[in-house]
Amino acid sequence: MSAAIVGVGMTKFGRDLEHQLPELAAEAIHLALEDAGIDRRDVKYVAFANIGGWSSEFFPLPIVCEYAGLTPTGGMRVEAACASGSAALNAAYMAVASGVADIALAVGAERMNESETSQVVELLGRGGNFFWEFENFGLTFPAYYALFATAYFQEYAANEEDLAKIAVKNHYYGSMNPKAQFQKRITIEDVLKSRYVAWPLKLYDCSPITDGAAAAVIASEKVASKLTDTPTWIKAQGVATGTANLTMRKNFLSLESAVEAAKQAYEKAGVDDPRKSFDFALVHDCFTIAEILAYEDLGFADRGKGYLLAREEQTYIGGVIPVNIDGGLKAKGHPIGASGLAMVHEAVKQLRQEAEKGRQAPIKRGQALIHNVGGTGHFAYVTILSLEKP
Amino acid sequence: MSAAIVGVGMTKFGRDLEHQLPELAAEAIHLALEDAGIDRRDVKYVAFANIGGWSSEFFPLPIVCEYAGLTPTGGMRVEAACASGSAALNAAYMAVASGVADIALAVGAERMNESETSQVVELLGRGGNFFWEFENFGLTFPAYYALFATAYFQEYAANEEDLAKIAVKNHYYGSMNPKAQFQKRITIEDVLKSRYVAWPLKLYDCSPITDGAAAAVIASEKVASKLTDTPTWIKAQGVATGTANLTMRKNFLSLESAVEAAKQAYEKAGVDDPRKSFDFALVHDCFTIAEILAYEDLGFADRGKGYLLAREEQTYIGGVIPVNIDGGLKAKGHPIGASGLAMVHEAVKQLRQEAEKGRQAPIKRGQALIHNVGGTGHFAYVTILSLEKP
Repeated sequence: MSAAIVGVGMTKFGRDLEHQLPELAAEAIHLALEDAGIDRRDVKYVAFANIGGWSSEFFPLPIVCEYAGLTPTGGMRVEAACASGSAALNAAYMAVASGVADIALAVGAERMNESETSQVVELLGRGGNFFWEFENFGLTFPAYYALFATAYFQEYAANEEDLAKIAVKNHYYGSMNPKAQFQKRITIEDVLKSRYVAWPLKLYDCSPITDGAAAAVIASEKVASKLTDTPTWIKAQGVATGTANLTMRKNFLSLESAVEAAKQAYEKAGVDDPRKSFDFALVHDCFTIAEILAYEDLGFADRGKGYLLAREEQTYIGGVIPVNIDGGLKAKGHPIGASGLAMVHEAVKQLRQEAEKGRQAPIKRGQALIHNVGGTGHFAYVTILSLEKP
Repeated sequence: MSAAIVGVGMTKFGRDLEHQLPELAAEAIHLALEDAGIDRRDVKYVAFANIGGWSSEFFPLPIVCEYAGLTPTGGMRVEAACASGSAALNAAYMAVASGVADIALAVGAERMNESETSQVVELLGRGGNFFWEFENFGLTFPAYYALFATAYFQEYAANEEDLAKIAVKNHYYGSMNPKAQFQKRITIEDVLKSRYVAWPLKLYDCSPITDGAAAAVIASEKVASKLTDTPTWIKAQGVATGTANLTMRKNFLSLESAVEAAKQAYEKAGVDDPRKSFDFALVHDCFTIAEILAYEDLGFADRGKGYLLAREEQTYIGGVIPVNIDGGLKAKGHPIGASGLAMVHEAVKQLRQEAEKGRQAPIKRGQALIHNVGGTGHFAYVTILSLEKP
């Protein structure tokens, strides 16, 4: 059965200690319900993406449901590390496509600044293989992605300036996105002069610690056709896991799970040439190197040529494929559980041509790609949204 | 689309510090795959129920997938507090019924003894409304359920001996279940003489802290018909949330979410009289009072009469409806993420008439009920399994 996104909402991303987790989630939910033109009582299933660990509520979904006025609607919290938002979309999609619900809600929220930064760093470090890597070697997330960057530099002719170009692009688009955590443009020099976090990654190569929430309403074909003239169909999702033990990876030049998830999604959606199938893509740029790997893993560039897309500015609007025209995780922010659904929010707004001036992509194919990674490829979700019913 | 359970597996429940979380999960997975007669490569989707918090791995699913040889199969971790196992069944069911996968795996595991008991008590205490109850009033889980017991005693003519009868029954059946944590029969006197944890609940009124895992393989009708002559169909699931703020509950004599979830499941499955529809039921007896409330919430007894079913021993095999003939959470153990799937394991074995002698229920209606609660009714999942295709 087909299922469409009929409403989206998200909070302003940033450092927000004023609002509790349920408040953040409820704001995104209410915006999504309003966008869909439905009442909270119409929601029959809720999938809530949230990592927790750093926030006080141990079982947050019932509290979110209550705060948003959804009780007694049932559902579950879902977690796929930093891809949890896409997992919530997946669960809500399956609820509708299986006939369990005619209207389902996917919501993601994270309140990361509730914890001390050192605690966030520790908890994220556990996102790898705790036993083998975090405990024994002290790897944190910037260090994980630095391994990818050094391997990439070693193998190909890329350099720190190529990484910097990703940050500059994403800040450029973030500057036009009122929901973004950072709305300030930066220069190559700003990036290159910023301090090292884990060589060769500098402060401006890293996505920030963010508080925020995002939500999407998924409806059956029958309900969607009544609610809107512009349903955004979930055409395909590819879902994969990868080894959590980095010593088992074939190399550090690709995320195998992302390649696998893309392959699944492309097969389901009948995508032959990814370069010519999407109006834009939203990819998981938790670090600048991750966006370059995504170009290759998704087939936007040949293997070893991803950095050239950055260098030649081919992922701005007007280039080969516009990427992260909402600012990406880098500038929009990365409240883990919400990030995948913030990508959904952006894709739906873009496909409806409701994005702000200067960052609205031309919509010709009516199709967009979302690439959401958990850990360093421990999870990957690749989602294809389309204005055309699958 | 219909979906059936074609294989189940579980570890021996108990205190087990010898095995890591992925080892526990992998054992249950391998038993379930063997029972289904399929290879791990046949699995197309994994839903993993795990609370985490007290175990080291922050994002455990990829590690479980890897340890069980499932990588790169994709999926998500799901959490619905102590009903997480039923949420995993729900996700795997939706994966199959939506056509996302023809074979999906639901697995739940918890390694609770990894943490100090005091830490487990704190984390469970957060299962309520952390802000309003745990932080301000210091409520822990036995204290939450003691509120229900005292309210029940106040309203009806029930007493501590009625609660004790639940513990005695569940230990009786646990004594015949080789997978149970406690395989020792106890007497009413044993219960009454045990020390108070939170009046009127004593040690033997409480389920234990348990390490363990359970798994189920869900298949499409087409695949199920090839694999087995005795598929167990997921006929209906009801899913609800309840307020996490106990001051907002109408009373302490019922779990509103369980009533709602049962209503949904009964409507979907066409159940008119719950007393005459099931060969047995597996209910969430995290505390003895919870089993009595379940009798009423599920319609096995009229309101205020649940304790009489216990007093008159009507929930033994041969009575009105056999309940927790595997030992229940009380004697079988309650490794949170695994508990709902251990109920599924038991229901499938019973319906196939593969349970041990002395605790096999007569199978006449070919239908069983599973009642799995999260928190104190923050979540409720009611599942109806049937030998007849829905």
